[in-house]
Amino acid sequence: MSTAGKVAEDPGFRSGLEGVIVAETAISHVDGPNGRLLYRGGNSIESVVDRSYEDIVHLLLHGGFPEPQAATAFAARLAGGRPLNAAARAALEGLPCAAEPAAALRTILSAHGAARGVRAPDVPEALALTAVAPTAVAAFHRRRRGLPELEPRADLGHVANFLHLLHGEAPDPRQVRWLEAYFTVTADHALSPSTFTAQVVGSTGSDLTSAIVAAIGALKGPAHGGATTEATRMLDRVGDPANAEAFVLDLLARGGRLMGFGHREYRRYDPRARILAEVCREANPRYHAVAAAVEAVAERELAARHPDRPNLTNVDYFAGGVLSAVGIPDDEFVCVFAAARLVGWAAHVIEYVERGERIVSPASRWLGPDQEPGVRGATGRNGGFGC
Amino acid sequence: MSTAGKVAEDPGFRSGLEGVIVAETAISHVDGPNGRLLYRGGNSIESVVDRSYEDIVHLLLHGGFPEPQAATAFAARLAGGRPLNAAARAALEGLPCAAEPAAALRTILSAHGAARGVRAPDVPEALALTAVAPTAVAAFHRRRRGLPELEPRADLGHVANFLHLLHGEAPDPRQVRWLEAYFTVTADHALSPSTFTAQVVGSTGSDLTSAIVAAIGALKGPAHGGATTEATRMLDRVGDPANAEAFVLDLLARGGRLMGFGHREYRRYDPRARILAEVCREANPRYHAVAAAVEAVAERELAARHPDRPNLTNVDYFAGGVLSAVGIPDDEFVCVFAAARLVGWAAHVIEYVERGERIVSPASRWLGPDQEPGVRGATGRNGGFGC
Repeated sequence: MSTAGKVAEDPGFRSGLEGVIVAETAISHVDGPNGRLLYRGGNSIESVVDRSYEDIVHLLLHGGFPEPQAATAFAARLAGGRPLNAAARAALEGLPCAAEPAAALRTILSAHGAARGVRAPDVPEALALTAVAPTAVAAFHRRRRGLPELEPRADLGHVANFLHLLHGEAPDPRQVRWLEAYFTVTADHALSPSTFTAQVVGSTGSDLTSAIVAAIGALKGPAHGGATTEATRMLDRVGDPANAEAFVLDLLARGGRLMGFGHREYRRYDPRARILAEVCREANPRYHAVAAAVEAVAERELAARHPDRPNLTNVDYFAGGVLSAVGIPDDEFVCVFAAARLVGWAAHVIEYVERGERIVSPASRWLGPDQEPGVRGATGRNGGFGC
Repeated sequence: MSTAGKVAEDPGFRSGLEGVIVAETAISHVDGPNGRLLYRGGNSIESVVDRSYEDIVHLLLHGGFPEPQAATAFAARLAGGRPLNAAARAALEGLPCAAEPAAALRTILSAHGAARGVRAPDVPEALALTAVAPTAVAAFHRRRRGLPELEPRADLGHVANFLHLLHGEAPDPRQVRWLEAYFTVTADHALSPSTFTAQVVGSTGSDLTSAIVAAIGALKGPAHGGATTEATRMLDRVGDPANAEAFVLDLLARGGRLMGFGHREYRRYDPRARILAEVCREANPRYHAVAAAVEAVAERELAARHPDRPNLTNVDYFAGGVLSAVGIPDDEFVCVFAAARLVGWAAHVIEYVERGERIVSPASRWLGPDQEPGVRGATGRNGGFGC
């Protein structure tokens, strides 16, 4: 990558848009220097991690927690949106069991939204998609195993019902608590690449389903939400805390990359990693023991090699331990991530549209030749916009 | 919209990323000052408009036109990718006839790609998606009319086969020529919002189907590719050239917006509009007569009101006349646009990935409060990146 050189040569080109402000938002804030993630209203994730996921959905979409007397109705409204419609079920049943789970989720939600009809992004649309996403994840989870699909249970909360749909048992309250913590701390994260994708789609006046489907496509990339799976597979290869020292030294000696370490913004620590590490310690002691052993060696070695970089674990590192503990296979991690993050994507799209911001249409620089070189200004920048 | 004020206050926030360079590209170039659109190799669209669409696909993906002896094999390879797979057909058959055609296309291609499996974006993937897109458009076109789906004909070129799949007749060579001109001049347009959407998705390491599905969601927005439909509906309401003067004056007096006029980049004229106006004159004289009458009044009136702005017709204005002439209903225009543009989306994603550019992860500015105000630096910018 010659990126750094290009940025230095011409501040007009910022590969990856690093540091370029594309939106003003009151949905969430990554306070990197202080290692904090704030949700709407300025609530740190530490202060909301014991809340129900329904409360977080309400916070991100409405700006505050529901009044006690309204919370039941809000939860019931979400619960009412759980069933897949006929179009979604047809798309599900047409997918081969070998399909990538995230591609299946993308397809099922696209079909579900297509059948619901096109409406402008708003809170009812956001609730409908938030409600149905776990059903889609669980339906493909069971389909690829040859297990029958289960009916949503309106008497269970959002996360408990998801575990029921996955496993068909009365969900263990501890598992609900662990997974609910995961859902809560991953529900939003400012303008992450998938959130930005949703925002660009929403900026054209498109519908919320299109924005969400686009965001799933971005999230599943290995450089984005797919990284949780890579971190877990790395720790699976280590297998035992006793192997940690040799594994890390060997990997670094070969120029390999430790998965789940470092973050562009959190310079001290990733607050989600700290929360999920504690959940993982309780939920998955075996995973946690290996992860902690690798973490100790890695921090020592990375600090020695790159003292200027933040080298602590990020959200991907312990998340897999939590998700594994509740019976989610590693190739479905990103689907669960999408189900938890969907409300954040929706909140940002709604906010962008409501603020009346412009269609996102950046410029590019032309590197090609010109077959009619006599024309003035033949090279230069593409201004963007238009179709 | 308080956008202009915000930009003036703080150059760090550019609503819509206007003028911000997000990529360097050799795929296409919008030479706004000179009213030119150049494709790869510096070929103006005027110089390639009589080429087959297969030649344009080859140009955008490979950087040049195929050698004569290779052109047949290339066309055959594209033709081989036309059939929908079983997953795509199941998704299609599950969609209600009332679904928005672009949402149907999004869903069918998502299913098709999910069943093909996840591979890195490359030319074979781009050809596979380019080949199948018209089949998906035509299949839903017929399904919503209760007509049986037709088999692709390998003896026909890309555009001729599309007309066959839509209408089930031996395609009229004139119709093929008209539609092929539309496909050729809309095949790419630098970093349009939908192209940028595809690039953001591709930047996370995701697959090409995810990028294309995301781009369809962006294109169908009324502020982007959906505008062709709006322009055609406006001209339908005018109905007769004799009504043009009264229509334009009344619309402008009421503060209404003329659809299909102006462009952020083309300061002199949109070269696609000039080409499509000529095609429309031959293909759809009645549409052209109304469009030309409205254009004459509108240019006069807009120039008087906004002498500083480019007020000439853009690509959306005459495109609907061409698409209507080949039997495409106005609510499917954006699907045809997507089928033509798909190769451009793919070419930009492949280029971005091959150049090793970074994950697209911009920043945002926090507008919310902080519940723990004692922490240093609680407000400020979100740096972006991370999950």
